[in-house]
Amino acid sequence: MALTKQEALGYAREFQEDLDRVIRFWVKNSPDWENGGYLVCLDTLGKVYDTLKPVWLQGRQTWMFSEFFTKIERKPEWLRICELGANFLRDHCRAPDGSWYFSVNRRGKPLVQPYNIFSDCFATMALSGYAVAAGQKWARQMAAETYANIIRRSSNPKGQWSKAVPGGMPSRALALPMIEVNLAMVLSEHLAAAPMEGDAELAARHGLSPERIRGRIVSLLENLFKDFVDPATGLMHEHIMENPEDQDSYGGRLVNPGHTLECCWFVIEAAKTLPDEPYKALKEQVIAKSCELMLKTLDFGWDKTFGGIFYFMDMKGAPVEQLEWDQKLWWVHVEAMIACAIAFRETRRPVFGEWYRRLHEYSFNHFVDKINGEWFGYLNRRGEVLLALKGGKWKGCFHVPRGDMRLIRVMNEIATMLPN
Amino acid sequence: MALTKQEALGYAREFQEDLDRVIRFWVKNSPDWENGGYLVCLDTLGKVYDTLKPVWLQGRQTWMFSEFFTKIERKPEWLRICELGANFLRDHCRAPDGSWYFSVNRRGKPLVQPYNIFSDCFATMALSGYAVAAGQKWARQMAAETYANIIRRSSNPKGQWSKAVPGGMPSRALALPMIEVNLAMVLSEHLAAAPMEGDAELAARHGLSPERIRGRIVSLLENLFKDFVDPATGLMHEHIMENPEDQDSYGGRLVNPGHTLECCWFVIEAAKTLPDEPYKALKEQVIAKSCELMLKTLDFGWDKTFGGIFYFMDMKGAPVEQLEWDQKLWWVHVEAMIACAIAFRETRRPVFGEWYRRLHEYSFNHFVDKINGEWFGYLNRRGEVLLALKGGKWKGCFHVPRGDMRLIRVMNEIATMLPN
Repeated sequence: MALTKQEALGYAREFQEDLDRVIRFWVKNSPDWENGGYLVCLDTLGKVYDTLKPVWLQGRQTWMFSEFFTKIERKPEWLRICELGANFLRDHCRAPDGSWYFSVNRRGKPLVQPYNIFSDCFATMALSGYAVAAGQKWARQMAAETYANIIRRSSNPKGQWSKAVPGGMPSRALALPMIEVNLAMVLSEHLAAAPMEGDAELAARHGLSPERIRGRIVSLLENLFKDFVDPATGLMHEHIMENPEDQDSYGGRLVNPGHTLECCWFVIEAAKTLPDEPYKALKEQVIAKSCELMLKTLDFGWDKTFGGIFYFMDMKGAPVEQLEWDQKLWWVHVEAMIACAIAFRETRRPVFGEWYRRLHEYSFNHFVDKINGEWFGYLNRRGEVLLALKGGKWKGCFHVPRGDMRLIRVMNEIATMLPN
Repeated sequence: MALTKQEALGYAREFQEDLDRVIRFWVKNSPDWENGGYLVCLDTLGKVYDTLKPVWLQGRQTWMFSEFFTKIERKPEWLRICELGANFLRDHCRAPDGSWYFSVNRRGKPLVQPYNIFSDCFATMALSGYAVAAGQKWARQMAAETYANIIRRSSNPKGQWSKAVPGGMPSRALALPMIEVNLAMVLSEHLAAAPMEGDAELAARHGLSPERIRGRIVSLLENLFKDFVDPATGLMHEHIMENPEDQDSYGGRLVNPGHTLECCWFVIEAAKTLPDEPYKALKEQVIAKSCELMLKTLDFGWDKTFGGIFYFMDMKGAPVEQLEWDQKLWWVHVEAMIACAIAFRETRRPVFGEWYRRLHEYSFNHFVDKINGEWFGYLNRRGEVLLALKGGKWKGCFHVPRGDMRLIRVMNEIATMLPN
């Protein structure tokens, strides 16, 4: 059954309440006022159990607080927290060559080399967001430099730390083009929201201009499905092998349903930013293909026994390499809800209302901690809490509040378009 | 209660039956007569689901078949299978600098760089074992070169592929000294079992001599507990941090009970190879400390709710980084059984009999596949099969048959020493 206006408004309220709890949790427990940046390894109650500072999470949280400040309320405290992250990133997380370390310690001493290009992606979002929130040109400048660096590195993202023998089993991962779609959307939003003196120079020197970014979005949208969707199953590959005979392998058969669903909403929202002329056909095609892919993926990835979406699967049902394959992860379910809500908004097909309801019920019954705030991150297959943490090496202030904000917006859009 | 003679003989019989099933499984399903080497990604029935050839597993299986041939029966088929692995290792798995790739494809094309020193360790065991089984000097020569290379690389085992920033959070892992103890035992056994022309030259050029190896064993035994056992808890660290303030961290608090227990039996058996003069005190100390460490570890690592030993734990009960922490792995339980049997043989303390029985019952009820042979590798916390495979990227022909052979021997030793 389709979603009703009443339901959509009710969901929006639930996400608003969740967002309030979640922001409180991070404001209270995470800022490291002494050393700068954020403490992110937080237990159920928000107590620090490790002082590691992964750069992914420093960047994501900085961006998140720029979102709170620019889109919810211009609270000085939120801006100070955003600034705490941006300055820590600038002062401690960037390697001499302009790429970004993977992690640093509490005081900002680098621990793990810049082998992971996603550190750079999240640093870009963070600095670009901080530039808008605080009107700081240095941050937009550094975001532009980093963005150019990402584009330059994207054909060999791991560089010297790649363990693949050149020519061995060449492949491309979904993760990078997928995150690039999101990054491009975020950057063009920032450029439009807050034009700054010097933007023309950044455009000329680093390619950070609305036109260049739009060109990148169009090219990604034209190729993503063609490259990564398997014609036989209609599911999305995590890795595309250059030699087709390599595809029938661990990596080549791997499906990450959460990634696929996150990718689906990224591309729909990115397509919506394009003007109809000359992109009408591309936009319609992206929306139709995403919706089809989502249904295949939900059907394949949903655990018919215990509910929830599996973390990793094999397209042909062979054993996967990832021992954690049957676990239920918070971000998978947040991204799946966003994808279904957006698909319903675009198509009004009842099937997306039904999937949305199922996901919402599962998530609020299993992940949400209404008492202490934030969501548990990792459940076992049965939906029991597997790790009693709210933040860790890979989970910070990102998917949950981003999802809350996005779902408040989409649910309100749905309510507006539906009759009473 | 202590083990009885009857029990010990019964266990020995069970392991003999298991070993027969296990060898049949690998002989039937794994040799790649077309391309050389072994196919190791095998499902429940032994069907190949991936043609990846990880070098760890090529080496381990080659060594294992040298053991079957030299210690069980001189079957020509087993020697041919051993040779198939040794030649494949020599022809395809060694990088130009003499270190060993991490994995190659079915036809031997290198896929993953030699970032992992354990590939070298298992290649050494394999070639050294094949040299004894087949009387092939080239294999002992290559084993000697590789062994010298391991010793040389041991202070920076990952080399250019290390992602740690130098000076960031310097640490040492238990895995390398632990495996070195085992490697030293295996190599000295081979040298003693089959002296060859040219041994003197290998001793002079590569340090592969009984005296040098004994020196290495003594030094490892003198330092392992001192370095890695935490005085406060009596548990073993997986990583020792150079700066004590770094110890209270994810890696610094990590306990891998299976590793600890495997390490305990390695060091006891290594100590037993030393003559009493001048090592009596060291031997007694190693046995006493290992037994104490085993009891602490079993008590800490045993799952009081569902049985079995956890895979990863935090010394202080904080959330661990490893999502698979609560799973029950085959090798952990094999190694735990060996450790308890050896501790019982050395001490006759009833507590080791009790632990042994508990582990044996758990293992034979959960891991062993009596119908199709070999053990399941990965169970969830409740002891249900999580991945329906007998071999994969990390599981091959190694822990189970090595355990079967060792436990047949130790149970017979126990039976001999006990009254009727």
